[in-house]
Formats: sequence, C-alpha cells, structure tokens
Amino acid sequence: MVRSRAAVAWAAGQPLEVTEIDVEGPRAGEVLLRVVATGVCHTDAFTLSGADPEGIFPAVLGHEGGAVVVEVGPGVTSLAVGDHVIPLYTPECRSCRFCLSGKTNLCQAIRATQGRGLMPDGSSRFSRNGQSIHHYMGTSTFSEYTVVPEIAVAKIAPEAPLEKVCLLGCGVTTGIGAVLNTAKVEPGSSVAVFGLGGIGLAVIIGAVMAGAERIIGIDTNPDKFAIAGQLGATECLDPKAFDAPIQEVVIDRTDGGVDYSFECIGNVQVMRAALECCHKGWGESTIIGVAGAGQEIATRPFQLVTGRVWRGSAFGGVRGRSELPGYVDRFQQGEIPLDTFITHTMGLEDINRAFDLMHAGQSIRSVIHF
Amino acid sequence: MVRSRAAVAWAAGQPLEVTEIDVEGPRAGEVLLRVVATGVCHTDAFTLSGADPEGIFPAVLGHEGGAVVVEVGPGVTSLAVGDHVIPLYTPECRSCRFCLSGKTNLCQAIRATQGRGLMPDGSSRFSRNGQSIHHYMGTSTFSEYTVVPEIAVAKIAPEAPLEKVCLLGCGVTTGIGAVLNTAKVEPGSSVAVFGLGGIGLAVIIGAVMAGAERIIGIDTNPDKFAIAGQLGATECLDPKAFDAPIQEVVIDRTDGGVDYSFECIGNVQVMRAALECCHKGWGESTIIGVAGAGQEIATRPFQLVTGRVWRGSAFGGVRGRSELPGYVDRFQQGEIPLDTFITHTMGLEDINRAFDLMHAGQSIRSVIHF
Repeated sequence: MVRSRAAVAWAAGQPLEVTEIDVEGPRAGEVLLRVVATGVCHTDAFTLSGADPEGIFPAVLGHEGGAVVVEVGPGVTSLAVGDHVIPLYTPECRSCRFCLSGKTNLCQAIRATQGRGLMPDGSSRFSRNGQSIHHYMGTSTFSEYTVVPEIAVAKIAPEAPLEKVCLLGCGVTTGIGAVLNTAKVEPGSSVAVFGLGGIGLAVIIGAVMAGAERIIGIDTNPDKFAIAGQLGATECLDPKAFDAPIQEVVIDRTDGGVDYSFECIGNVQVMRAALECCHKGWGESTIIGVAGAGQEIATRPFQLVTGRVWRGSAFGGVRGRSELPGYVDRFQQGEIPLDTFITHTMGLEDINRAFDLMHAGQSIRSVIHF
Repeated sequence: MVRSRAAVAWAAGQPLEVTEIDVEGPRAGEVLLRVVATGVCHTDAFTLSGADPEGIFPAVLGHEGGAVVVEVGPGVTSLAVGDHVIPLYTPECRSCRFCLSGKTNLCQAIRATQGRGLMPDGSSRFSRNGQSIHHYMGTSTFSEYTVVPEIAVAKIAPEAPLEKVCLLGCGVTTGIGAVLNTAKVEPGSSVAVFGLGGIGLAVIIGAVMAGAERIIGIDTNPDKFAIAGQLGATECLDPKAFDAPIQEVVIDRTDGGVDYSFECIGNVQVMRAALECCHKGWGESTIIGVAGAGQEIATRPFQLVTGRVWRGSAFGGVRGRSELPGYVDRFQQGEIPLDTFITHTMGLEDINRAFDLMHAGQSIRSVIHF
C-alpha cells in the first residue's frame, strides 16, 4: 500500500478533488507504476461530464500517461522495476482470439472488468479512508501511483522524455495510427481531415508521414489553421465560409473527392460529410471521433455501392506493446512533433484548469507533471 | 440498317411490346451484335416498373446478353466479325482516370451518355417508323441486333454456350465478384448471405470458390434453402423464425459474428443487419443490392469504430474486358453452375411471362432465346 496524490472524480459534472488516496500493491500479473506526467484528453472530460453512458464514479480518471515501474506483482515477466512505460487502455494480451487474428488491435482479454472500472480480478486498488474508488480505462493516470495489468503496459526507450511521450498514450497515436494502420494512406494521396483538435492534428502528422500530397484541414474555427499548416496541411477550409455543403466544396476542389478522409470530432453529420467527400470508386473514410450515446450515422447506400468504404479506428489500430515503442522512437527521431501539442503544463493541483482550458478551446493538450 | 425483332418498353408500368425495330449500323468505335440469348434481371424489372428515377422511355431494355459480332465500325481494333462476346453495362476503356487507378471497375468514359440512354456520340441506333428509341445500360439486349461501344464488350471463348454464359453479363458475376474482388474473402472464413435470389446464390458460389468454411444463407422464403444448400450454403436461416433480430441470431451462432456479410436485396434495414452481424474487430459487410431512390442506411458509428467495415460492390468489382473471359472459362471448367440459375427458357415473344415469373418469385433466371 502506498499513499498517492491523485485527482478523484467523485461524481459526474463536479470538479476533480486533488487529494491523497491509498493504492494497494500489484497482485499477480499487475505492476505498480509511478506516473511522471499525464495528458488531459477529451475522453476524460466526456466521462467527467456525465455524458458517457459507461462512466462510473467515484473514479481516478486519466489515460495518457508516462510512467516508471516501481513494483511488479507475481508472475510478471515482461517488465522490471525501473522500466519506462506508457499504460495502455487498449491492452495486448497476445493470446485472445482478437490478438491472434492479426486483423485488429482490440484485445478483449480484460474488457469486461476494465469496463466496470476494476482490475482483471474484479477488485480495485484505489481507496480513500476505506472507500473503494474505481479505475478508469484500465489506466487511471491522474494518480501519482497507479496499478495496471502487465498486458496493458508498453515498455519504451528509457531516454525518451515521459512528460512528452505520455501523449502517445492516446490522441497522437490514435490519429497517426488511423492514417498508417487503419486507412493505410499511400504516397501521393489526397486527404481530408475533419476537426483540427489534437486527433485531427495527429492525422495531419500521419498523413505527412505517409507521403500524402494534399492534406485538407477542415474546422469551423479558423484559429486552428495556422498550426494545421505548420504541421503539414496544404490548405484549410472553414465550412461556415461556403454556401454549399462541405462535402461538395471538397469534391469541387479535388476533381471528384479525396482518396482518404478522417472524422476527428464525434459528430455524426460530419461523419456523413467525411464519407461523401471521398472519391467515387476508391475513397475511404475513417471515423475516429466518438459520437454521443445513441446517435447514428446515415448515408445513401449508393455512396458505398459506387466504391466508397466506411471504416473506423480505435487507438489508431495500434497494438500497444508491439507498436507503441516504435512511435516513441519516431518521436525521438523528430518525426512526431509532440511539442506542438503541449500548449500548457501544470502541476496536479491545477488539473481542473486543464479541463477549463479544454472546454474553452484554448488548449490542444495540457500535460500534468506530478 | 437492319430490321430486328425486339421487346420495346414504351412506357413505365406497361408490358413490353414485341415488335420489329430498325437498328442503325455501328459508327466509329462501335460494333453491331446479334444477340443469341439474354437473361431477364431484376434491374430490368425495376426500370420497367417506373421506380427507377433514371429510367427513360421508350427504350430497349436488357443487359445480360450473349452475342456475336456481326459488323464493326471504323476504328474498332479489338473485335472482329464472328467474335463471341458479352456486352458490358460497366465498360472498361483502359484510359480514364478510374480505369487507370487500378482501384475500381467503375469506368466513367461513357457514363454521361449511357445514363441518358444514348450512344457515346449522343444519338440512338434504335428507331421504329422513324421514332427514336433509347438504349438502356449501354447494352439493350432485348433486341436481336444491338449496337454497343467497343469498350463495352468482353470477347469470350467461342466454344462457350452463349445461352448460358449470358448470365455472366450481370447477376452471377456480380455475386461472385463481390466475394472475390470486393470483399476478398479468405479460405476458412465465415460468410452470411442476405437474400437468396440470383445474386445471393452467386455469392454462395463465390464463397465456395474462395474456400469459405461456413456459409449462412438468410431469406424470409424457406423455399430457397434447398438450392442454397445445393450450391454450398452450410446452413440457412429464416429471420421470421426468430424473436431476436437476425443480426443477434447470427452473432449468437457464430461466436461473435461472421467475417464477411453480403446484402443481396436492396433493403436498407437488411443492409444494417448485414453490417451489424459482422464480427467486432474485422467483420466486413458488402452491399450489392440497390435500394429505392432516397432511402438511407444507418447504424451507430460504434459499429465501425470497433472494427467493422462497410463497403459496396457494383458488377462485383469486375473489369469486364479483362476479367469476364476468365469467368467464362471457370464456367467451362465446371466451377460456376450456371444451369442451376436457369429455371426457364423461352422465346422473345414470351418475354413478358419472364417478368411475371420473376414478380411471382417463381424463377431465378429466365433466359430468352432469340
């Protein structure tokens, strides 16, 4: 048992309480991590708001962490004390039917308990004054100490700065992976990116890495265009500036539509536009954004029969333990400009300000330093 | 100019008139064909009914023909008098951006004029008593003589029986191609086929050719199950026999869903079921059926974000001039049991009975022998 500074979400819609909690040591197949830094992501805000139908309280939120292993439980073989790691909300057990399929990163080994805010044995390691507190996304990085299953940990190069590569634990990898793993964008392609938040900007980086020739950034907030251009967007469009629907605008400007599009917002109308701006015969649209509960996408089936493909991506199709270390290496080699994403850094005591900045659209990512 | 027996659709919703028409000889880049036999397909009935918003009258319908070249126009180099051919409603010019993409069979070289019921130069070759009659789908095989562009003709082995391989001009190739070209079903896969008409049965054949291990046929008419089983379906389901939605039934019986599904009806609700019965992480659904004007498909985006893929197929993704001759060869080698599809044969004078049989659900395909 260790005492840990943590930000606890006691109930939906309330600010986090920065407090001290008790963290039980790792059981079999688990490791205790000391979190060095964590990003604050829209998904944390989505759950905290109460809009997430699967949200459970009280909980320690946070899923974009950079950490060091401080204790390993019985049976742990792939990690040792002192290893630098990124916790994975999408684990990689390498033995379930999903991992063995070779077709998906959606390991299901611990899905049931993770969804209920518990460790794989059905219990929690977090408490305060004896009151149990739930885990979140299997990671709970808003605590200086956290416990995660061995299969949910990517071991990374020890020289990488944890306070930066923590962002590879979610958004940046999600965007880059959606381009490289899910859509498999080819050199010379045209790409449309709907939504220029953290995910959309990461899609732009991925498109540059893939050798895309034309990268169209789309957002209703033109303030985001400068940074999009800096990262590699070749042009940016504000749908509000046109009378025609944005899919028609994109089709007009690209002689029939783009080869690939990405929805990075979670808006079902934008998902439709993203599909319909794809080129007849071969255009593929990838949904990354998470829509509100019960919302549906729609289009005319003719869009698909004439050759467009509609797909989606979770954590960029990235198998965390196998592939995330390579993302860290690519950051180290200068291919992934994480610094551009980090607009604010602060201590844990200011974490509610990170949420305020996000809601106000004033940050890409705030990184909490413990 | 030749006189030709033909079945003319003078107006929507009326029976065809079997009559004689005038067929002008081929102009530059065109060939005159003598049609030996033609299938009668649901798409002909769809247009004749008036439900097709792009239907134009009067017209010579028909698009599933087996024919012989009787005259070639100026500049035609790839065809000669006496060649056995199948007309293509999806041409293959090999020089437009679509053909050159290597990603689609949707050649656009003559799409505009074909959609207006005209030859590429904007005129018609059909008339009666000086009244012009439109072409249909670029093929118009309900006439003993028809004129088609060179780029819309597949030259096939002369020993193949035209009164059978005519069916490879549409439905059978569409179903097989959707499996082999569009979905690219792998050996050992599980497959669900929604709708056991001609297209659905052809999908079953394609799934067998692809080495699928489990092939689930689904239709609300259990009378179709025997032939589906004969062609290779390993089980058949009637959605009416279950309280639960059919996607849940399929998911239950396949430990999480099928690897591939195909919608062969044109019903947008069934399209949704076909997507949602696919396996999380990798299941892919292909829409083949043509929905009514203005109808839309819908689902929760979560279905895609968790790894399912939604696509569509037209003419099975088959490049007609390049690939259709190979389909004819596979029929000759016994791999494609076309005889199973031909439930009725008749002369042109009985063509309206072919439509009646189709509407009554009593035929798979009627073949008209000229």
